Amino acid sequence: MQGFFFDELSVGQSAEMSRVVGSADIEAFAEVSGDINPVHLDEAYARTTTFGERIAHGMLSAAYISAVLGNRLPGPGVIYLSQSLRFRRPVRIGDLVVARVTIISLDQAKARATLETVCEVGGKTVIDGEALVIAPRRPA
Amino acid sequence: MQGFFFDELSVGQSAEMSRVVGSADIEAFAEVSGDINPVHLDEAYARTTTFGERIAHGMLSAAYISAVLGNRLPGPGVIYLSQSLRFRRPVRIGDLVVARVTIISLDQAKARATLETVCEVGGKTVIDGEALVIAPRRPA
Repeated sequence: MQGFFFDELSVGQSAEMSRVVGSADIEAFAEVSGDINPVHLDEAYARTTTFGERIAHGMLSAAYISAVLGNRLPGPGVIYLSQSLRFRRPVRIGDLVVARVTIISLDQAKARATLETVCEVGGKTVIDGEALVIAPRRPA
Repeated sequence: MQGFFFDELSVGQSAEMSRVVGSADIEAFAEVSGDINPVHLDEAYARTTTFGERIAHGMLSAAYISAVLGNRLPGPGVIYLSQSLRFRRPVRIGDLVVARVTIISLDQAKARATLETVCEVGGKTVIDGEALVIAPRRPA
């Protein structure tokens, strides 16, 4: 796994990952997070909600954003400072979530990058927001 | 699991959960999120970083915030609209993370609540931010 040094970053640079969200992913996320809200786990309950069926935890898709930042851009060595998340649409079982990060500004003095962070399903935004990270400096 | 209707909410109302973050939690979170940054998984690599040892994914602690919202306050029936997260300090293996949400304002017309959302370890803030949610209205 190879990340980027700060001096290799430029505005507009982008990276993404895709995952199909399965029932097992939702169950694993419920286990690790402790979020056992029945809208995620109980089909009969979920049918009574506005969503009409089980939906994924919003934070599961948000975690894919952090995965792109930690694995790809900037990648290992990144320090995560902040993240904003707007949950725009639900993610359902079987949805292919595309998480994409795009650099929108760079702070040379602090080696910081601000990235637009989006998750999409079928071309529609399910999460949007921004991340602020420190990218590793190239060793002298 | 019993949540709150919007008319049962008041400013200052608070709920929390606590979890000790184990190595197995970090590995499970890496698996479900796809975030395999070695700072979380590889002790030898992590020793070369500014953190000096393996740290938890920031989004794992963030997921505890969503668990409090989904399980406790408002609880099941909540619709998660947005979340801001500032990652202030790392979480290390064995740390007890306390995730707490506190209602700071209510929008009667839209049945929305804004909550201060904090994760602490040993009384120190590791994450802070705010959540905006819709709470379920009491059936007529």
